[in-house]
Amino acid sequence: MSQLTTIVLAILLASGACWGQNQQTAPAPTNVPDAEYPRLNPDRSATFRIQADEAQKVQLLMDLGQATYEMAKAPDGMWEVTTKPLLPGFHYYLISSDGFVSTDPGSRAFFAARKEVSGIEVPAPESDFFAAKDVPHGSLRIEWYFSKTTGDWRRIYVYTPPGYEQGTKRYPVLYLQHGWGEDETGWSRQGHENFILDNLIAAGKAQPMIIVNENGMTGIHFAPPPPPRPGTTAPSGAATHRTLASSLLEERYTLFDNVIAQDLVPFIDTHFRTIPDREHRALAGLSMGGGQAVRIGLHHQDLFAYLGAFSPAFFLNDTSRDYDGAFADAAKLNQRLRLLWIGVGSDDFLLDPVKQAHEKLQQAGIKHVWVESPGAHVWTVWRKYLADFAPRLFQ
Amino acid sequence: MSQLTTIVLAILLASGACWGQNQQTAPAPTNVPDAEYPRLNPDRSATFRIQADEAQKVQLLMDLGQATYEMAKAPDGMWEVTTKPLLPGFHYYLISSDGFVSTDPGSRAFFAARKEVSGIEVPAPESDFFAAKDVPHGSLRIEWYFSKTTGDWRRIYVYTPPGYEQGTKRYPVLYLQHGWGEDETGWSRQGHENFILDNLIAAGKAQPMIIVNENGMTGIHFAPPPPPRPGTTAPSGAATHRTLASSLLEERYTLFDNVIAQDLVPFIDTHFRTIPDREHRALAGLSMGGGQAVRIGLHHQDLFAYLGAFSPAFFLNDTSRDYDGAFADAAKLNQRLRLLWIGVGSDDFLLDPVKQAHEKLQQAGIKHVWVESPGAHVWTVWRKYLADFAPRLFQ
Repeated sequence: MSQLTTIVLAILLASGACWGQNQQTAPAPTNVPDAEYPRLNPDRSATFRIQADEAQKVQLLMDLGQATYEMAKAPDGMWEVTTKPLLPGFHYYLISSDGFVSTDPGSRAFFAARKEVSGIEVPAPESDFFAAKDVPHGSLRIEWYFSKTTGDWRRIYVYTPPGYEQGTKRYPVLYLQHGWGEDETGWSRQGHENFILDNLIAAGKAQPMIIVNENGMTGIHFAPPPPPRPGTTAPSGAATHRTLASSLLEERYTLFDNVIAQDLVPFIDTHFRTIPDREHRALAGLSMGGGQAVRIGLHHQDLFAYLGAFSPAFFLNDTSRDYDGAFADAAKLNQRLRLLWIGVGSDDFLLDPVKQAHEKLQQAGIKHVWVESPGAHVWTVWRKYLADFAPRLFQ
Repeated sequence: MSQLTTIVLAILLASGACWGQNQQTAPAPTNVPDAEYPRLNPDRSATFRIQADEAQKVQLLMDLGQATYEMAKAPDGMWEVTTKPLLPGFHYYLISSDGFVSTDPGSRAFFAARKEVSGIEVPAPESDFFAAKDVPHGSLRIEWYFSKTTGDWRRIYVYTPPGYEQGTKRYPVLYLQHGWGEDETGWSRQGHENFILDNLIAAGKAQPMIIVNENGMTGIHFAPPPPPRPGTTAPSGAATHRTLASSLLEERYTLFDNVIAQDLVPFIDTHFRTIPDREHRALAGLSMGGGQAVRIGLHHQDLFAYLGAFSPAFFLNDTSRDYDGAFADAAKLNQRLRLLWIGVGSDDFLLDPVKQAHEKLQQAGIKHVWVESPGAHVWTVWRKYLADFAPRLFQ
């Protein structure tokens, strides 16, 4: 081999051999250590493999049943399927084996739909904003506190920004809530709130702040919508919307409102170096948590000056009467709220009601930030919403 | 009804009607919210129910297959089984449906056997020492740090004791490791290390200390022992022992040793208010983590003065040569180590080798605390060991 050929080959190898890289598959980043499957393919499809030796029918329920794939027995006896190309970002999924619906042993479990489910992350260049980078990292804390409202010890997650430990500075607080069926782990495990804030703070784009995640399923004990059965189609957007809306009506919602206003905010202000006034508190959430943020925020304007509603369960018909008339006096509310942020994906089943709420607010002259972005009712969208929302806080 | 009868009835009801209470069943405390099953019965048996409409054979694999129960179809189509009375404490389990082995949707998931598995807690009066009580609570923190040894960002769990936030005091540190196939979440989620320490500190029985949990599966990429197949018996103690021993021999163990000694200890001493000397550092672990604690501790006596080995993978044949001769000079080691704590359950499959190691240490005149207690190779035992070990530290 000539020296030139050697050098060219070395350069090709050192450059990562792009032509080869595109044809490689790799275990998903959400796999448990050393699990080879599920694997991501270059076209962003994913291949799943499941052991179920005596099963008659094995299915992959992507996005909790929004897309069902029949798995087939491979020559080695494992059940296998390759999906169509998946949207970049995070997808919940489950495996159904002869009607036993459970997690994929190859993947990490995440809490959703009121149980542990599997999840798969499909990385993309746009995932960079929530990556763990070589920047100062905040801490994520698991804390327990006693709630007089519910009479039990409650677990919360608290992000403290880089530098919190070293100084005596006081910080503003964002209370940030998950969606229906999820819990206080959602915003860190699925949402990567800590890395999103680490990166925004390092770039000088967001104020250093504390983030608090509570469990918003408090007082919600109604029956969940039945899971899609194998072979049937997922519930339509309209049906899901009706279920969600009636669920929220059934929620004993003063319970969670009191947990936030009477128990949680005082605990945080006592145990963390906060700036304990409304101008330094925000409340936001996604889906059900977005509805809670609007409701609790409007009822407790003494506590919160910034509100965020991500793909929210937020229904507004009459701005003069709904939410106990909180929208009736636009001038007063506009003066009082420093930010009302509302966003929803153009493929979200909640698009219509949220857009209607936005239009009613516009007609009533209620100032708000309105974002309609690509995407459905998924964490991929909510991570981006946090990255848009957080820089607008406490400025 | 006479007034007296009414009063008697009221007293009976108010007293909790003890005779009735003993006959009641209740959802396990490890269930996901609102899941009615698995249920604990008054005799400490548990009843499991699983939906698997088209399955031919459904089994409950208790303690990861140590005991297999055949489930039967109930009149309502659910698969059901009631176990024999279970030992109080924590049990891993899985469901096998036609050979698909996965989690029970009714239970929380825990990381073990290198994947997410279900767990059930069987409470007993002796569980009180790890309960969340009305005492000052420390914080449990999830931190990320960059390891030069492995070249990646690593997640650790760090317990800081009550009062850590409020003062400027510096604290000693216990590095505490999980077992094979588990991860850095084990000691908080299965072990309740935080509540154990909260309670010990509140009772004045243990010094306030920081606890750090790393992922000891670092560099361990050998194939795990095959899971017990339905219908076969679990591997014998001797076979399991051989598998574990050969696994540890295959471990590229200097990798984890370097993570601890070169990356983790410096990170903790930089980012937490520690007392950064060997007299204020302990290293302990369970099973594989106990073997790691002995090995790393003996190799790094400059870093650690207290060692704990809970049901450890600790094999000792020749005290004059094993562990690079660390046991060869008893007087020197006795002077150097402030504590060497070794404990194992009388039903543990590791009883024989650990007992042999204890006897060899005795013969060689190596001072150590030796505990042989009731119980098997389970978290129920390790929680108690932490409660025995922690009060002996940093006194």
